[in-house]
Amino acid sequence: MKLTPDASGTFAIAPTPFFDDGRIDYESIDRLTDFYGKVGCNGVTVLGILGEAPKLEGNESLEVATRFIKRNPKLQIIVGVSAPGFASMRSLAQASMDAGAAAVMIAPPPHLRTDDQITSYFKQAAEAIGDDIPWVLQDYPLTLTVVMTPAVIRKIVMDSKSCVMLKHEDWPGLEKISTLRNWQKDGSLRPMSILTGNGALFLDFEMERGADGAMTGYAFPELLIDVVTKIKKGDRDGAHDIFDAHLPLIRYEQQPGVGLSVRKYVLKKRGLLSSDAQRKPGSSMTAAARAEVDYLLSRVARTDKRAALK
Amino acid sequence: MKLTPDASGTFAIAPTPFFDDGRIDYESIDRLTDFYGKVGCNGVTVLGILGEAPKLEGNESLEVATRFIKRNPKLQIIVGVSAPGFASMRSLAQASMDAGAAAVMIAPPPHLRTDDQITSYFKQAAEAIGDDIPWVLQDYPLTLTVVMTPAVIRKIVMDSKSCVMLKHEDWPGLEKISTLRNWQKDGSLRPMSILTGNGALFLDFEMERGADGAMTGYAFPELLIDVVTKIKKGDRDGAHDIFDAHLPLIRYEQQPGVGLSVRKYVLKKRGLLSSDAQRKPGSSMTAAARAEVDYLLSRVARTDKRAALK
Amino acid sequence: MKLTPDASGTFAIAPTPFFDDGRIDYESIDRLTDFYGKVGCNGVTVLGILGEAPKLEGNESLEVATRFIKRNPKLQIIVGVSAPGFASMRSLAQASMDAGAAAVMIAPPPHLRTDDQITSYFKQAAEAIGDDIPWVLQDYPLTLTVVMTPAVIRKIVMDSKSCVMLKHEDWPGLEKISTLRNWQKDGSLRPMSILTGNGALFLDFEMERGADGAMTGYAFPELLIDVVTKIKKGDRDGAHDIFDAHLPLIRYEQQPGVGLSVRKYVLKKRGLLSSDAQRKPGSSMTAAARAEVDYLLSRVARTDKRAALK
Amino acid sequence: MKLTPDASGTFAIAPTPFFDDGRIDYESIDRLTDFYGKVGCNGVTVLGILGEAPKLEGNESLEVATRFIKRNPKLQIIVGVSAPGFASMRSLAQASMDAGAAAVMIAPPPHLRTDDQITSYFKQAAEAIGDDIPWVLQDYPLTLTVVMTPAVIRKIVMDSKSCVMLKHEDWPGLEKISTLRNWQKDGSLRPMSILTGNGALFLDFEMERGADGAMTGYAFPELLIDVVTKIKKGDRDGAHDIFDAHLPLIRYEQQPGVGLSVRKYVLKKRGLLSSDAQRKPGSSMTAAARAEVDYLLSRVARTDKRAALK
Repeated sequence: MKLTPDASGTFAIAPTPFFDDGRIDYESIDRLTDFYGKVGCNGVTVLGILGEAPKLEGNESLEVATRFIKRNPKLQIIVGVSAPGFASMRSLAQASMDAGAAAVMIAPPPHLRTDDQITSYFKQAAEAIGDDIPWVLQDYPLTLTVVMTPAVIRKIVMDSKSCVMLKHEDWPGLEKISTLRNWQKDGSLRPMSILTGNGALFLDFEMERGADGAMTGYAFPELLIDVVTKIKKGDRDGAHDIFDAHLPLIRYEQQPGVGLSVRKYVLKKRGLLSSDAQRKPGSSMTAAARAEVDYLLSRVARTDKRAALK
Repeated sequence: MKLTPDASGTFAIAPTPFFDDGRIDYESIDRLTDFYGKVGCNGVTVLGILGEAPKLEGNESLEVATRFIKRNPKLQIIVGVSAPGFASMRSLAQASMDAGAAAVMIAPPPHLRTDDQITSYFKQAAEAIGDDIPWVLQDYPLTLTVVMTPAVIRKIVMDSKSCVMLKHEDWPGLEKISTLRNWQKDGSLRPMSILTGNGALFLDFEMERGADGAMTGYAFPELLIDVVTKIKKGDRDGAHDIFDAHLPLIRYEQQPGVGLSVRKYVLKKRGLLSSDAQRKPGSSMTAAARAEVDYLLSRVARTDKRAALK
Repeated sequence: MKLTPDASGTFAIAPTPFFDDGRIDYESIDRLTDFYGKVGCNGVTVLGILGEAPKLEGNESLEVATRFIKRNPKLQIIVGVSAPGFASMRSLAQASMDAGAAAVMIAPPPHLRTDDQITSYFKQAAEAIGDDIPWVLQDYPLTLTVVMTPAVIRKIVMDSKSCVMLKHEDWPGLEKISTLRNWQKDGSLRPMSILTGNGALFLDFEMERGADGAMTGYAFPELLIDVVTKIKKGDRDGAHDIFDAHLPLIRYEQQPGVGLSVRKYVLKKRGLLSSDAQRKPGSSMTAAARAEVDYLLSRVARTDKRAALK
Repeated sequence: MKLTPDASGTFAIAPTPFFDDGRIDYESIDRLTDFYGKVGCNGVTVLGILGEAPKLEGNESLEVATRFIKRNPKLQIIVGVSAPGFASMRSLAQASMDAGAAAVMIAPPPHLRTDDQITSYFKQAAEAIGDDIPWVLQDYPLTLTVVMTPAVIRKIVMDSKSCVMLKHEDWPGLEKISTLRNWQKDGSLRPMSILTGNGALFLDFEMERGADGAMTGYAFPELLIDVVTKIKKGDRDGAHDIFDAHLPLIRYEQQPGVGLSVRKYVLKKRGLLSSDAQRKPGSSMTAAARAEVDYLLSRVARTDKRAALK
């Protein structure tokens, strides 16, 4: 079940569950995986930026990935393998694929600046992991500080046949989706999947511009699925209606640095995580922030009962 | 009518109107000013980042500021005077105050990094303009890349008695407001006004955390006034209801680099600008983006008739 | 005497002389200009980064440039016209040329990241000033944070016929010179002048790689002329001998943020500046730093008598 | 033989030797260690930025560190343990100390901006590794983009008793050394060692300002020892004479991104490394660059016979 260029739908970005003392909470991984499968996610992305991947030690990364992979063979698991060196990247990529992952995801290191530096990096990275491993290109300038034009993305994709998906989270990014889709129509870019991140803050229009689905960590993946499905069915107003009901919370979760603590807080309230702790160095929520999220949940719940949490 | 530390309410950030050929459109300045006054703004901030200030030549800056100032003596006009050198900053500040401005606004230059560099800069800047000119401290890390802790803001404020207001647009920033307000309660920070920017994306909670009002360029300042007023009256749900109705458009306008073109597009649709052109180098909207904004306006208009534009 | 693509030799970067109270010291401009001419500089670049250009007000910039230009018609004066907006850039460029400047110099604004952003910016800038004004492209990533590959430079040069010179101060940058020179040999890049900056820290090898000369602010332009001349005559060892004698001081002057105060200190010791003050915000030297420079001067003077200052 | 606050002398920064195919070359580690001991280094720092540490996999890091440690019990080995997460940092730190390391070195992650963020990070890091492990604070803004004022360094040092040394490589940095030394004199900062990096480009004056020695990777640690020793003996001119003879090569090695390839090239020429390869992604030297280094070596060798390599 390797990932292919026609992948679509909703891939949840999973946090890595920890106990309060920083140990990995494997049972919560199981609960999360079961939940993602039950609500209808097509896949799950693990060890991403949201997944606190850099805080894991070498063997832990593979153990976390494997736990997600083994729990539900029907879910496609994408494993984040970004690393400062290609040796670590290759070994985690190959071990993850051996364990049954569908693909790996690679983000650019922050020091890349010029178009050439970026395309060269990904060419080398793709060679390093081996051309039999499908991989996802992550384009996230706000956090990674690396800015890729559509032409750079095209060159990366055309240079490596095993690149099957773009995780798009440029901001602003709507025109980028349109440009890439136009290039696919005129044949200058081969087919590939585009899933969008950015905490879903623009999912409504990203789908209308031609995205294949969502890949982000919003604590209600059901909402992502709803929007993706409704837009694909042509129900524009319906998609925006449900999206807009969640937007106040989506916006709150999308705050840099704070978002992860909000997501873990909501996922804990949903009964999926036993603790909302982050491994150090991490952030936490004040009582005021928790009360704000509770208020937002209560407002979302007026429209969407799934947000009615205790 | 100089600005004082108890300023509150809504200050619109005004764009600078240009004709398609790049000339300044002074009649649109008049229309904008009349509009801001009519809807109930307490003041207007001109020559900010949104106002394309760096694209103006020396004499133009003062002419634009003066036009806003002279049009409606009841509106408090705050003039952005950020400049790489203190000579230009001082001359524009003094000339603006002579023309009748209520205050000036100063943003940190992007190269500042350490706490000491930041506090020293503002101490020198305040001395440069002279201690009889009230000034607004702009805290906008996303665009300016300068990160100020609450303690740094406190030191800047305590160092300069003429600093009367914080334009808060840190992101995330809610805890920063709470911290500053707590310091004012315990007496370690003197009173000062806090108005919030960030395109109003968090205005609902910023007001609840203790902000005195809004200072941003959202194309419906009426909405800012509504939220500010309702929160102050204790109508929490009412404030969030009207805020949430606008949030999809607020979010769309808040996109870096794109926001200004959206705002000018909407303000032109509202009959306030004769052209939505930016002076070069600028950005423009695609047909797809304009259609998206039109759609968002039509959705906002279901709740708020003021958004029903042709 | 407009600048042409075959320009070569040594262009001194001139500081802007101020009195201790921040006023411009025009008589020191005269002394500096006379000095540059007497020692054999081919030209002088004014209002560069070293020239504290952003601290000048609009009319001052032109007055400073004009004073340099009028003093010695035999010197080619290049005027830095970098500005956040094209309106200011154009007006200073055209007024400078009208006053007799040989060319203008343009640096990229710091927010540019992708190859497209960079090439588009310079295309627009060249159009803005008008295609009859020869201009110098400044490539200085250490300070400006904009990284241009050789291919980007080639595109900029091929897009604008009036771009006649590269001011090269990438670091590391030797391979960049070789690449550009190779492209000129194979015909894929048209002829243009390359002068190098970076405080002359690599002037020895930059000349060997094919640079046409030096354009930097080292307080002994005589040394720059010596190295440029000796390399061109094929006297490799001689060039390195005199270069190495100055290198300890060159290195000391090349410290970011500190360099300007060192240069003004030495130029004052040389009798060229009446004050070593910078306009605010500026930096100054401690007694320890001044003593270190004095010691370095005394050591250079063992080999080069021109460094024997009181 | 744990590192103490009165450490001084010369600590070489060791590269990690690789074969051309990317495997670690342990025999070259032995040769390097023997060499550092023979020439009189007081210690060796491994797994630093120069050591390509991020390219190693988890178990490799410890193996490399251990190989250096076990080879020569008389050399104090400092192990770089910088990591995005405290879990990895702690495990490498504790395992290295168990293997016999003298101390560990910690650099700040690049996202830190405010004084509070920086001091909090190091407080947490010191707690994470445990207060019985002496550690070295690395201050290297040029590469790490984190700027620490002297006051921040003082707070870090006063917060953690186990911080025994500052690896100083700020640029410019001479005044920082003077400030810290003055604070130690007036009692507001406890005693600690200061060794300086920056490729030795300012070692001459750093020693005069009060540094205890050198910690950098210049391919001739003998030169570092000479300068450190001569300054301590009061032989100022002698120190500068030998320093100046090497400065042209020191400067060439100090180029960002290129420096490591130059150092490995010279160390290979010295018979210490079997290959000058870097693990991917790495850089390499052109024939022109190699010829330039050969020329510089021949010039240094006129004064210092140790630089006469084949």
